[in-house]
Amino acid sequence: MVRVSRLPHGGNVYAASRELSCDVKDLLDFSASINPLGPSPLVWKAVSKARHLLRHYPDPECWELRQALARLWQCDVEQLVVGNGSMELIHALPYALKLHHLLLVQPTFAEYAATMARAGRQVTGVSAEQGEQYALPIERLLRLLRARATKSHSYDGILLCNPNSPTGQVWDAADMMELAQAAERRGMWLIVDESFADYCPERSLLPRKGRFSRIVVLRSLTKFYALPGLRVGYAVADAPVVQLLRRHLPPWSVSAMGQVAALAALQDQAHARRSLQFIKKERARFAAGLAVMPGCTVLPAYANYIFMELPRGWHAATMAARLRRDGLLIRDCSDMPGAGPGSIRVAVRSRRDNDRLLRTMADVLRQGPA
Amino acid sequence: MVRVSRLPHGGNVYAASRELSCDVKDLLDFSASINPLGPSPLVWKAVSKARHLLRHYPDPECWELRQALARLWQCDVEQLVVGNGSMELIHALPYALKLHHLLLVQPTFAEYAATMARAGRQVTGVSAEQGEQYALPIERLLRLLRARATKSHSYDGILLCNPNSPTGQVWDAADMMELAQAAERRGMWLIVDESFADYCPERSLLPRKGRFSRIVVLRSLTKFYALPGLRVGYAVADAPVVQLLRRHLPPWSVSAMGQVAALAALQDQAHARRSLQFIKKERARFAAGLAVMPGCTVLPAYANYIFMELPRGWHAATMAARLRRDGLLIRDCSDMPGAGPGSIRVAVRSRRDNDRLLRTMADVLRQGPA
Repeated sequence: MVRVSRLPHGGNVYAASRELSCDVKDLLDFSASINPLGPSPLVWKAVSKARHLLRHYPDPECWELRQALARLWQCDVEQLVVGNGSMELIHALPYALKLHHLLLVQPTFAEYAATMARAGRQVTGVSAEQGEQYALPIERLLRLLRARATKSHSYDGILLCNPNSPTGQVWDAADMMELAQAAERRGMWLIVDESFADYCPERSLLPRKGRFSRIVVLRSLTKFYALPGLRVGYAVADAPVVQLLRRHLPPWSVSAMGQVAALAALQDQAHARRSLQFIKKERARFAAGLAVMPGCTVLPAYANYIFMELPRGWHAATMAARLRRDGLLIRDCSDMPGAGPGSIRVAVRSRRDNDRLLRTMADVLRQGPA
Repeated sequence: MVRVSRLPHGGNVYAASRELSCDVKDLLDFSASINPLGPSPLVWKAVSKARHLLRHYPDPECWELRQALARLWQCDVEQLVVGNGSMELIHALPYALKLHHLLLVQPTFAEYAATMARAGRQVTGVSAEQGEQYALPIERLLRLLRARATKSHSYDGILLCNPNSPTGQVWDAADMMELAQAAERRGMWLIVDESFADYCPERSLLPRKGRFSRIVVLRSLTKFYALPGLRVGYAVADAPVVQLLRRHLPPWSVSAMGQVAALAALQDQAHARRSLQFIKKERARFAAGLAVMPGCTVLPAYANYIFMELPRGWHAATMAARLRRDGLLIRDCSDMPGAGPGSIRVAVRSRRDNDRLLRTMADVLRQGPA
């Protein structure tokens, strides 16, 4: 059983604003990785126009939204289920798929293990190695799948985050397909959380998953579409699997405003293009700025966040606390199984915000960890 | 094990608008019981002002909202947990409280039994009798609690809806306290869904529950505060029980907009007073109009809906279908265990809307059921 991270999640600007007695607006949140261009301007227009829907229960079918997603992914509406954030879908997985023992590649998003623990189920962590830049340990995973026949290895699913949070690594599509085949052959589930895959669409399993009956792909409107405040995520899977998931979600879980916002967000392709272009350019510039800091190691990044190691002698918690005093929130990853004591994750924000983090971090590093 | 209603829920204006090819605005929804005065005007103002929160994860603690609720109920913040609608809390109950066998007084909200079935748990229904105006069968319940000692009766909880949906009955506070004591003595849970209790605050258990460790009271912002589109409900219970519930909810389940809206709604006491006055007067007028229809039996009502029996020979489904053609949605309750074939529930809406239902229903009744 893996350790469940005891550290608070990133993105809790409310706790920080209470602690620092400031407004949420005065914080620069690098701890949650939200598109720095924010939601499409169409979103608020649509939500505002739909305010009469406040007094109706939301559409329990999420019909219009699922229609739009089916067009987007060229799949059937019955292959789609929408949740109150992808978190609600993750929470339902162990019950809906009867998952009892999940393989995870670590370090990864702490809620996978926490969800399994909540349901009284088991998790086995496979470490991606820091020395190998946290690459997917594909050989070890395949070996574990093969060993599954023995009683001591009762895995019934693998859950991968791709691109992985917090390390930022993206798994190769060919490797993923090999895993999918191996899992399918053994009647195991392959769950791929693609919450950040909008940043590298060419790596998504979605255009490829047609042939498999035991793959669940999770997507989110939270990150790229910048709608964390309204909670919309979805899963793409075979229709019978979608039925299993739906049956384990409470009715009306996706708010009317969330559905309206998601629909508007998906329609603004110009905003999506602008976001991709901006992130690509600014991520490179920001990463270069972080990489030149003495003793810091910056990992290749494929989404809108950067994973890095602080210099030897620095603990991530120390750095996070120092930056927090200045209203800069970063994600301390030191407590995540498989990460190092100096592992942090920072979101790519606007040029100005990133420059402020670079300056402040340089100052803090200069002062030393003591 | 009770039958789980196969009929769709009320309140699905989206399905009706698709079926009738009309806009949601063109429907008069009497099938969901939402305050006809709508949400306080302060709600949209607050949501609109908080639109910058779209791009942040919601406060996972719902801190401000829980503070406001703690002031309202004179309880500790730690005795409160907020959910994505009270439905999310109901969904979590069997897991959080380890409920394996629940007693329900029927007819009642179908999701209690559906939730237990989803979790693979058992339910036993105790019928409130139509001939007794669906009064609380307190003696039978107490007998069942006493019989619990025997192995064949393994109930570990009672769930009551008060005022009860769909029948509109309100249970006497003294009876409730007797049940609470009997349940407490036997280590059983008493769960009271007070989603409609804002309409008869003097009957709520909340000012009384202080002394019990195994009572959970569920409340909702959906009905009286008219916020079904944004999903906010909460539970009041002892702090350790609240902890159990929180542990079984996915993080960030209550949207930022939902929290902001709920906070604003609770603050508008003038709107709450106006709503109570309006419903009291209009419910009496509307009920009188329904009661004079030949062959109809109207039950006493304590919330913002009216439960009634159509004349002999009428099936609720026939009436619902006929009214639906005119864009009037009512709740067909015929399939709910314990209800009759002609049982329907109608919400109290504006005077004009109610008059339209009265006229159309009178016409339909005149034409006969064939």
